[in-house]
Amino acid sequence: MERQMSSSTVKKLLAIPGPIELSPTVQSALALPTLSHVSPEFVKIFQESLHMTRQVVQTNSSSTPFILAGSGTLGWDQVGANLIEAGDRALVLSTGYFGLGFRDCLQAYGARVDVLKSDLGGTVPLGDVEKTLRKAKESGTGRPYKLITITHVDTSTGVLSDARAIAACVQRVSPGTLVVLDAVCSLASEDIQMDAWGLDVVLSASQKGLGGPPGLSILVASRRTISIFEDRIKRGVKSGSYYSSWEKWLPIMRAYDQNKPAYFGTPAVNLVTAYHASLREIVQGSISLSTRLSMHIAASDLVKCTAEALGMVQVAREPKGRAHGMTALYVPDLPGAPLTAADILAQVGKRNVVMAGGLVAEIKDRYIRIGHMGWSVVGEEGKDIRTILQVLEDSVKNAIAIKKNASTASARL
Amino acid sequence: MERQMSSSTVKKLLAIPGPIELSPTVQSALALPTLSHVSPEFVKIFQESLHMTRQVVQTNSSSTPFILAGSGTLGWDQVGANLIEAGDRALVLSTGYFGLGFRDCLQAYGARVDVLKSDLGGTVPLGDVEKTLRKAKESGTGRPYKLITITHVDTSTGVLSDARAIAACVQRVSPGTLVVLDAVCSLASEDIQMDAWGLDVVLSASQKGLGGPPGLSILVASRRTISIFEDRIKRGVKSGSYYSSWEKWLPIMRAYDQNKPAYFGTPAVNLVTAYHASLREIVQGSISLSTRLSMHIAASDLVKCTAEALGMVQVAREPKGRAHGMTALYVPDLPGAPLTAADILAQVGKRNVVMAGGLVAEIKDRYIRIGHMGWSVVGEEGKDIRTILQVLEDSVKNAIAIKKNASTASARL
Repeated sequence: MERQMSSSTVKKLLAIPGPIELSPTVQSALALPTLSHVSPEFVKIFQESLHMTRQVVQTNSSSTPFILAGSGTLGWDQVGANLIEAGDRALVLSTGYFGLGFRDCLQAYGARVDVLKSDLGGTVPLGDVEKTLRKAKESGTGRPYKLITITHVDTSTGVLSDARAIAACVQRVSPGTLVVLDAVCSLASEDIQMDAWGLDVVLSASQKGLGGPPGLSILVASRRTISIFEDRIKRGVKSGSYYSSWEKWLPIMRAYDQNKPAYFGTPAVNLVTAYHASLREIVQGSISLSTRLSMHIAASDLVKCTAEALGMVQVAREPKGRAHGMTALYVPDLPGAPLTAADILAQVGKRNVVMAGGLVAEIKDRYIRIGHMGWSVVGEEGKDIRTILQVLEDSVKNAIAIKKNASTASARL
Repeated sequence: MERQMSSSTVKKLLAIPGPIELSPTVQSALALPTLSHVSPEFVKIFQESLHMTRQVVQTNSSSTPFILAGSGTLGWDQVGANLIEAGDRALVLSTGYFGLGFRDCLQAYGARVDVLKSDLGGTVPLGDVEKTLRKAKESGTGRPYKLITITHVDTSTGVLSDARAIAACVQRVSPGTLVVLDAVCSLASEDIQMDAWGLDVVLSASQKGLGGPPGLSILVASRRTISIFEDRIKRGVKSGSYYSSWEKWLPIMRAYDQNKPAYFGTPAVNLVTAYHASLREIVQGSISLSTRLSMHIAASDLVKCTAEALGMVQVAREPKGRAHGMTALYVPDLPGAPLTAADILAQVGKRNVVMAGGLVAEIKDRYIRIGHMGWSVVGEEGKDIRTILQVLEDSVKNAIAIKKNASTASARL
C-alpha cells in the first residue's frame, strides 16, 4: 500500500474503525466533477442511493431513508429532535462511549433517560432489558418507554449487541416502544434485517461498513416511526431542531425517492456520488451482501486469532458479543515493564498503517482498536487484511522487544 | 469543457450559483485517499483550514471559526440554536427566499422575529433598518434585538446587500445587537471585512465562492458572540440543538486550532482536504484575495452587459445592489409569444452548460440564474466565462427563434 500522495507523504493504510479505505471505484466516483444537485443525473443517483440504502438494511419501500450532509452524530440528532417530546421516557442500552453519547443527545431534547450500562466489554443482559421494560409499563406513571436505543457495535469497545434478540424482547414486553438501532459501526459489516427484526429506526454513517467517505448521515425510519412523527406535527409539536427536522426533509427525500429534485439544503453531491458507487458494490456487485458479511466474519476471526497468539486480550469479553468489522485489544501484559497503546501505535505508524487508540476513559492507554471493514475485507483478495496481521505482529513484537531491552538496560545500571 | 465522465456522459460546465466548478487542484485534493481524522497530517490540514477561513473573512485570531459536516443551512441552525433563547427578538432583512428561510430557522428556536422585506429585486432601505432598530429600543419592553441577520447575496434574486453600511447603522443605533451575515453566496466572491465592519457572525458554505465541494458549513463567530454564548451556558440555558451545539464543538475547534485532535463527530475528511486546497488558492495563491474580488466584478460586469444586450433585465434592480458572483435574469420579453425559463435552460443544456431556474415563487418561470464564481472566474484566463457568455447568447437567440417560428407557423394555420 504505497500509493504516493505527494512527494513527501506515503499513503498509509487506514485500519481504524472508520473512516475506512475506499475501493478504487468509490475513490474514482469521489473524484468526478461536481454535478448540479437538481440535474437529472444527480437526481437519479440520489434516488438509487435511497433505494439501495433500503436494500442494505433489508427493508421494503414503506420505510423512509434519509441521506443528509452531516456526521454520524446527526443520526442521533434526528432521533432526538424528531421522536422525543419533552418528558418522553427513553431506555438507552450502553456498551461503551457511544451509548452514553446517544443518552446525552436524547436528554438535550428533553427525554427522561434510563441507562442500562453493561460491564466494561460485556453486553447488557437480555433479562435486565426485559425487567426494565416491564417495570416501566407497570409503574404508576403509565408511561412506557417511547423508544429504546441499541448501539449495535460500540466503536469504543468493539462490543456487538444482539439487536435481533433485544428487538424481539421489546416487541413481546413493550410493543409500543420504538426500537432504534445505532448501526454507525455495523451497517454492511454485520447482518441487519430491519423488517424481519422489527426495527423502527436504523441509523448509520457513510464512512464505515458502507464504504464511502465521511460526511453523510444515513438513517432509515419505519412507516410506524414516520406515522408517530407526523402525528406529533399534527398536534402542533414541532421538531426540536431546524437542521434535523423531518418536517423539512421528508418532502425532499420523498421527491428524490420518486426521481424528482427538491430543495431544502444543498446535498453533498460528491459524497453522495461516492456513497452511491459503494452501495452499488454492496448490493449489485459480484459479491453478494451475505457473502460480504461472511467475509467480514472470516477476516474478524483472523485478526482476533492473530491478536490472541500475540497475548492480546479482547476488550469485548463475550464470544458472541464481538463485532466483525473491528477489534478492540488490550496491549499484551508485560510483567515489570508495562506496555502502552502508544508504544504499539508508534510501531504500527512506522509501518505505514494507521490503527486507533482507545476511547473509553478508564482504559484509554491500555488498548488499541483495529478496523477491518469494507474494501479492506472484500477487495484485492484480502491483501489489506494480510498487511494488518503482519504489521500487528511485527509491531507488537517490536514494541515488546524495545520495552524489554530498556528494562534490561535500566536493571544493569 | 468536454472532459469525459463515463462513456455515456459528457462533463457539463456548472454555471449555477453553487455548487461551482472545482479547480484542478481542489479536484485532485478531493480524490486523495481518506486520512484518519486524528492523524497529524489531517490535524494540520484542519488547523490551517481554520486559520485560512479567518483570513478570507478578514478577522483576527480572537474569533472562532467552525467547520462542520453539513449544508449551508446548518449555519442558520448554529445561529438559531446557540444564540437564540426563547423570546429573544431578531430582525431579519429579507431580499429573497433565503432571508425567509433564516427567519423560519430563528423562529424554530423560539425567536420573535420581525422581517423587513425588500421589494422584489430591491434591497431593504437603510432608513427602514434604522427606524426599526430605534423603535425596538424605545418600545416599552426594553428588549432591543438580540441579533439582526443580513443575507449578503440572496441566491434566489442575486441581490447584494450593503453589509458594511447596515453593520455601521446597527453599531450606531443598537450596539448591543449582534450582526449576523449570511455569506453563503458571497464569501470569497464579495468583499467581507469581519473585523473592520464589526460583524459578529459570518456564515457560509464550502461550495460557492469558497470553491470547495458541497457538504461543509463554514461559520466564524466573533469573540463577543462566543462570550454571549458562554454566558448563556453559565446561566444553564443549553444550546437548542445537539448536533449544532457550540458547547460540543467549541472544544473541538479550539483543539484543532492548536494543532491537536479532538472528537465529537467525525469530520468530513475528504471535503475538508478539498476545502483546504481551495483556501490555499484563495489566500496563498498567485492571485491575491483582492485581485480575486476584482476579477469577480469584471466577470460579473461582462455577464450582465451581455445579458442586457440580449434584452434580459436583471432581477436585482439597483445598480449597487447586484451580486458579483451570480446574476438573476428575466427572460427577454417577447410580445405575443412569451418565453419561459425552461425554454432557455433547455437550449443551455443542449450546449453542455448548466444554469439554474428560479426560486422566488411569484416569478419562478420567468427568470434564470447564472453562477460565475471561483475557478470559472479566476482559472484558465476566463475560459469558462467566455463559454457562459457564448452559450447564453446562442441559447437566448435560439429560444427566441424557435418561439417566433412556432407562433408564425400557428398564425399561418
